Amino acid sequence: MKKNHVIGIDLGGTKISGALADMEGKVISKHIMPTNASEGETKVLNRIFQVIEKVLADADKTAEDIKSIGIGSPGPLDAKKGIIISTPNLPFDNFQLVNPISQKFNIPTYLDNDANVAAIGEHIFGAGKGTENMVFVTVSTGVGGGAIINGKIYRGNTCNALEIGHTTLEKDGPRCNCGNYGCVEALASGTAIKNRGKEAVERGEKTSLRSYEKITSYEVFQEAKKGDKAASEIIDSCLNYLGICVANIIAAFDPEMVIIGGGVSNAGSIVFDKVKEVVKIRCFESMANSCSIVPAGLGNDSGVIGAVALAITESDN
Amino acid sequence: MKKNHVIGIDLGGTKISGALADMEGKVISKHIMPTNASEGETKVLNRIFQVIEKVLADADKTAEDIKSIGIGSPGPLDAKKGIIISTPNLPFDNFQLVNPISQKFNIPTYLDNDANVAAIGEHIFGAGKGTENMVFVTVSTGVGGGAIINGKIYRGNTCNALEIGHTTLEKDGPRCNCGNYGCVEALASGTAIKNRGKEAVERGEKTSLRSYEKITSYEVFQEAKKGDKAASEIIDSCLNYLGICVANIIAAFDPEMVIIGGGVSNAGSIVFDKVKEVVKIRCFESMANSCSIVPAGLGNDSGVIGAVALAITESDN
Repeated sequence: MKKNHVIGIDLGGTKISGALADMEGKVISKHIMPTNASEGETKVLNRIFQVIEKVLADADKTAEDIKSIGIGSPGPLDAKKGIIISTPNLPFDNFQLVNPISQKFNIPTYLDNDANVAAIGEHIFGAGKGTENMVFVTVSTGVGGGAIINGKIYRGNTCNALEIGHTTLEKDGPRCNCGNYGCVEALASGTAIKNRGKEAVERGEKTSLRSYEKITSYEVFQEAKKGDKAASEIIDSCLNYLGICVANIIAAFDPEMVIIGGGVSNAGSIVFDKVKEVVKIRCFESMANSCSIVPAGLGNDSGVIGAVALAITESDN
Repeated sequence: MKKNHVIGIDLGGTKISGALADMEGKVISKHIMPTNASEGETKVLNRIFQVIEKVLADADKTAEDIKSIGIGSPGPLDAKKGIIISTPNLPFDNFQLVNPISQKFNIPTYLDNDANVAAIGEHIFGAGKGTENMVFVTVSTGVGGGAIINGKIYRGNTCNALEIGHTTLEKDGPRCNCGNYGCVEALASGTAIKNRGKEAVERGEKTSLRSYEKITSYEVFQEAKKGDKAASEIIDSCLNYLGICVANIIAAFDPEMVIIGGGVSNAGSIVFDKVKEVVKIRCFESMANSCSIVPAGLGNDSGVIGAVALAITESDN
């Protein structure tokens, strides 16, 4: 009997999302559980088992009906060995994920980092459908990326290609979580916007940001939109760096499309207008004109739909 | 009869180099003519015809023995249409190159930009032999690059991938020939080193560079090696930018190898030591450790041997 369903698992810092879908990505059943990572790897693994069993039961399927399982997770990870090496925000250390799952259910299981999984999702089901060469950039707490090259995800030599958040744009810039200085992530992420908003308040600048008890990038965007000068300068400066990052991606990869996702991209035209303006100034005209810069097509489900797409594309290989 | 020879043509600003080689890249005959580009496209095309006829005659071959012709040229060009669109240093304007050659000799003919051709040459016959993913960077008057991805040259959407010289590292940096500010080419090329040497003299700095009538990057390297402070600071600063450029390439492409060629790389260990030092500071340890940074393996013949490699790889497709 032809197996024509897959399961996608999005392992996140706060929740584990699972979906059972057909080969066109249509979701048949979904289930979400808290990650509770602090309880340790074995408990997390058991919760992933439970999510898989639940989506199978809800869709009235058994493991025999499933062609493959795809898992997206924060990295760095070793996709070939199926191990999460470590993650800055989760207490995992060489977490063996793929073997226990594939053995328990007797289903081929594939792991990749969340940015690659989202890139595959955008390529198969989202804004990047039909492209041969595209780059996906996610801008939220951090900045990550994934590239489709000649129609396939490009992983590189250690499965860490498109660590675009850790390219340097300011040699003496602010320190990044990775230890380097002046990374895109330290200059253009949601965290960078938040930090600069807080610093403006702490420095005693005249800004409407002072009225908030807690400042995130959302408040800085809101006050910038209302015309607050300090907030506007922060947003303009951070988005200028994001624009340079995208311009550098276009110069290096010459893609048909750059897709921008993640929380910061939800601010909409303020983000895309600035990025396009910077790209127009900094890129060769022919390259800039032939590359569209668009928002991600998959919304909040991008993680789990990307994992479904990973399961589909890997099982086709 | 099996055709087991190819011809490579390196079309440069001052000379046209041609070679007839076997499928292992062994050169049977070679010929060089001046480009004399100012005389116009038709004359240049005729000289390319003459070079091809000469290497055929010298090798005692006819056009029927030749499987394919590869041509490397400065860009931007349209490899698919076989046209040199324009070049900053040559008076070409939509120069139809491939069709006239392939029609005259009845041999399949392939064109690519000089950085891609050099990357293919390094991959097939040079330092990058056997790699799956590698990036070639050439640092001389300008800075260019080419990438081998999954064993094949990666051209991108408009055949301009790896315009690494025009990625921005200093948003308010010096103006680049391309019109942008703070490009790698404006910060780390031989031209950048030369310009900074001249500026130091013009500013009246105490430097041994004052003793030269004409300063090129070579003199700045020489005086830096002898311990001149101003020259040393220039070299250190420019190579720091080159190191950041290579670190950004590693973060983006996660390659097995970065090969550095071009005139500046001939300065040797002073270049490679600094680049490796910067990469070590700025890259994720696992990615830096798994990527070797090496000098180009093909010397002065890299252009024509690269063109031979282009002919071989394209005719295999």
